[in-house]
Amino acid sequence: MTRPSFDTHSPAWRALEALRPGAHATPLAQRFAADADRAARFSATAAGLTLDYSKNALDEAVLAALVALAAERQVDGLRDALLAGERINRTENRAVLHMALRAPQGAGFAVDGVDVMPAVVAVRERMLAFAESVRSGEWTGHGGEAIRDVVNIGIGGSDLGPRMACEALAAEAAGGPRMHFVSNVDGHALAGVLDALQPETTLFVIASKTFTTLETMRNADSARAWLLDAGLPRAAIARHFVAVSTHAEAVSAFGIDTANMFGFWDWVGGRFSMWSAVGLSLAIAVGEAGFRALLDGAHQMDRHFAEAPLAANLPVLLALVGLWNRDFLGYPSLCIAPYAEPLARLPAYLQQLEMESNGKSVRLDGEAVGVPTCPVIWGEPGTNGQHAFFQLLHQGTDVVPVDFILPLRPSHGLPDHHRLLLANGIAQSKALMVGRSAEAVRSELAAAGRSADEIARLVPHRTFAGNRPSNTILLPDLSPRSLGALIALYEHKVFVQGALWGINSFDQWGVELGKQLAGGIADELAGGPAGAHDGSTAALIARAKAALDDDAA
Amino acid sequence: MTRPSFDTHSPAWRALEALRPGAHATPLAQRFAADADRAARFSATAAGLTLDYSKNALDEAVLAALVALAAERQVDGLRDALLAGERINRTENRAVLHMALRAPQGAGFAVDGVDVMPAVVAVRERMLAFAESVRSGEWTGHGGEAIRDVVNIGIGGSDLGPRMACEALAAEAAGGPRMHFVSNVDGHALAGVLDALQPETTLFVIASKTFTTLETMRNADSARAWLLDAGLPRAAIARHFVAVSTHAEAVSAFGIDTANMFGFWDWVGGRFSMWSAVGLSLAIAVGEAGFRALLDGAHQMDRHFAEAPLAANLPVLLALVGLWNRDFLGYPSLCIAPYAEPLARLPAYLQQLEMESNGKSVRLDGEAVGVPTCPVIWGEPGTNGQHAFFQLLHQGTDVVPVDFILPLRPSHGLPDHHRLLLANGIAQSKALMVGRSAEAVRSELAAAGRSADEIARLVPHRTFAGNRPSNTILLPDLSPRSLGALIALYEHKVFVQGALWGINSFDQWGVELGKQLAGGIADELAGGPAGAHDGSTAALIARAKAALDDDAA
Repeated sequence: MTRPSFDTHSPAWRALEALRPGAHATPLAQRFAADADRAARFSATAAGLTLDYSKNALDEAVLAALVALAAERQVDGLRDALLAGERINRTENRAVLHMALRAPQGAGFAVDGVDVMPAVVAVRERMLAFAESVRSGEWTGHGGEAIRDVVNIGIGGSDLGPRMACEALAAEAAGGPRMHFVSNVDGHALAGVLDALQPETTLFVIASKTFTTLETMRNADSARAWLLDAGLPRAAIARHFVAVSTHAEAVSAFGIDTANMFGFWDWVGGRFSMWSAVGLSLAIAVGEAGFRALLDGAHQMDRHFAEAPLAANLPVLLALVGLWNRDFLGYPSLCIAPYAEPLARLPAYLQQLEMESNGKSVRLDGEAVGVPTCPVIWGEPGTNGQHAFFQLLHQGTDVVPVDFILPLRPSHGLPDHHRLLLANGIAQSKALMVGRSAEAVRSELAAAGRSADEIARLVPHRTFAGNRPSNTILLPDLSPRSLGALIALYEHKVFVQGALWGINSFDQWGVELGKQLAGGIADELAGGPAGAHDGSTAALIARAKAALDDDAA
Repeated sequence: MTRPSFDTHSPAWRALEALRPGAHATPLAQRFAADADRAARFSATAAGLTLDYSKNALDEAVLAALVALAAERQVDGLRDALLAGERINRTENRAVLHMALRAPQGAGFAVDGVDVMPAVVAVRERMLAFAESVRSGEWTGHGGEAIRDVVNIGIGGSDLGPRMACEALAAEAAGGPRMHFVSNVDGHALAGVLDALQPETTLFVIASKTFTTLETMRNADSARAWLLDAGLPRAAIARHFVAVSTHAEAVSAFGIDTANMFGFWDWVGGRFSMWSAVGLSLAIAVGEAGFRALLDGAHQMDRHFAEAPLAANLPVLLALVGLWNRDFLGYPSLCIAPYAEPLARLPAYLQQLEMESNGKSVRLDGEAVGVPTCPVIWGEPGTNGQHAFFQLLHQGTDVVPVDFILPLRPSHGLPDHHRLLLANGIAQSKALMVGRSAEAVRSELAAAGRSADEIARLVPHRTFAGNRPSNTILLPDLSPRSLGALIALYEHKVFVQGALWGINSFDQWGVELGKQLAGGIADELAGGPAGAHDGSTAALIARAKAALDDDAA
């Protein structure tokens, strides 16, 4: 389908602009006081997840205009084009079908009329069988020992998904091998992991579609050297290295048996790939059943996204609230606050998912978008964040919307902890909204017997403006199924926002320039001829070169 | 001293406003082309660190006006008041003397005329001796075994500093016990750590000044129960628990021998406390010599900060550039990009340091600041970030200034990795600045044989606006000394920005409200009477309660 051009003069956009002044006229707390049904009115549930977006500066008129904008921008039509396997990633001429990766056989996803499901299912089954063989100890290293440590070597989309999910689902992973992740080209990353491992019981999963990613191949080469330096023969490589890749020739040249190469397709973007063979490490960690439950949770969210009307569609709602906060209320960042330590890497995962997808200024038609697109996505788990940066969320000069993410049931046996955790998550969303007036502070200090002088001095510092917006997303638990649904929710949110802004969420040209310049500078640092640089870059290169040469001497 | 009120009508502020339009008139790349000395002109070195701030939209007139602003705001006078132990934290009536923690005996830091150094040195020596006794195996657990695992239980300032530094200095920690950190009240954090440990060889460091911090005491209680449930007698508590606290009574009641309680003072803020006994876990990890080197690195930066003129003062320059980017150019966040995997937690550490200190809207005199204060601080290590969110840094609609932090010499034996790492860090700052014009993209695509049609379609997507600002901070290495200097640099930057905005960087009233509301909600979740809530909060509490009650049934 042809996507309608972005237009800030469209009826829906103008309607939203007209509604903007009203957004702040009525504080959130007052909206709740005036409407007993507000929470229910602005909450929705799907695939086991509940999204409460009622603590945002919107009302039914704003929501209706946002939904009208989604209709005007033909979000539903684009969604159907996505699901139909059309080549909506037009700058790279690719379809976008990560939904197929979590669909059952016969789901009917196709590109150019060719059903992709048989290939998807074939790789999935082969990969899960391999994962189980490692987990069970059936797959052994060169010397016949079971694998005790798995090292995933990949970066970006080949790292963040399995890493985040392995941490999130650690409770499911009991009994399996220990998991390690190396992504950074910084040698400290690899050296730090290898220090504690034995080659005979270690399996490396090298995840790079092209088998040429700079960081990944540098780390893979060093890992192989470590194995060989320990005295293992070259033939051992095939027992200790497997690949997630499509480049059979390079994989084979590395020493990996292509029977242990797991591929994927050009319609799987890196940041949407944890459901594919890129999830191999995760599958080893949580086992076949856990991985299938993760896929199923995501598939449930996919079905909801495909079928629910715009106004009751969780990903659409999450996207629209985000657009409202970003483009109409002007908030430049979004804080992700999972009240769950196992979700510690979720903010980093969503940072890539959202910022690499929609951190763009140009529409598909080549024109400037003209309004702010993706905000900065950042965050840390609660309650930790409360003791760090929440000061700014409550009393800073800028408003920062927050997504609170609360799994209701824990995977451990310390119920007192979980009660305190949930109480804190809920209290923060309330505190941000209700604030605390100067009058309330004054009474409290007076009741505590403080002097009039002290009270006058302290009141401004202990007052909270309140009226700060947040979403709360409730998960039933931290199971693979819930995690799958949560990630799919944000994936589709990203798709919808891309559609609203008219941008291609599936390319990433913005990473090319730095990569290209780094190649030239690396050559210079290795003694190659000096390039043309500004004075700062030239001076930095000179200092780096001096340090490297010193170390080599 | 009395601090001058914040005033946007002051001569320096007005001068800066007048200079603002010029900031974007000349692109950065053009500034370098016009001035061969620009890099040197806008770089400075102290305590082994080099700050290159030349890739920012400023010139000598702007810098002069910024320095004039610092003078106008009496930053040097306030610095002297800080160093003189005046009670500059006026809302809490406290001095601010974390510099004393890294100073040598006789440095002369005093509060109300009383030299604090004898007490500082006494605790420091006692703590380092204890750390060495644990490290060497002289200190044993209840059954006479050496300590193999140390668990630091603390949150916020009692967690982020030692945690960040233990990771940063892992290369120094070889041979010592394994370090673990538990901060979150989420039971997954503690359960995940304890799962792999043996009580007989585990030492818990409980870090809470008042010994009442909710998360810390909840975790400490559960850790003690784990020890006793394993069959160790109550007397064993004193061999397996020590405290960083000042509340001797509570520490003793917990079962800890107060001989193993290490205190600090009310002039040490939590987020400035890693140099105090709060660094005990770090001292165990890196040993006495490592910890002393860390202190010395920070002390060198302190001396520079105390003595260097404003225009050549690293923390002052870093603060001024930040203020320029924030208040005059309007950039709402700052990305911290350490090109060093061991500095993975530095962004989180600086997030607390900056956002909890200066995420405030009110001046010391109680009036609104009136201009934006602390930006959102966020980031991930390079090169990881390049494969995640750098897309937005290069092509997003908002400009995000970046602090690139590059240690020049690695602590590992993989020089090829380090060359690539440095090349990437330097290339990114260049790429952000120079960008890539449509013309350059067009030529490149034509040279690659692409069709005119394709070229026209792709050019807008592969173009980079450039002209995006960054600082680069070079460290000689990742030694304790360099890390100490780096952290002290940012500490003083925070102090200077607080002085420029007229706010108190040393209180944190913004964390109180959420804490208070959480107490009430926790009681409700435990079956207490329902409080007065908005509909959303009430519904969230009801769902949380249902899940908790279900689990208990």
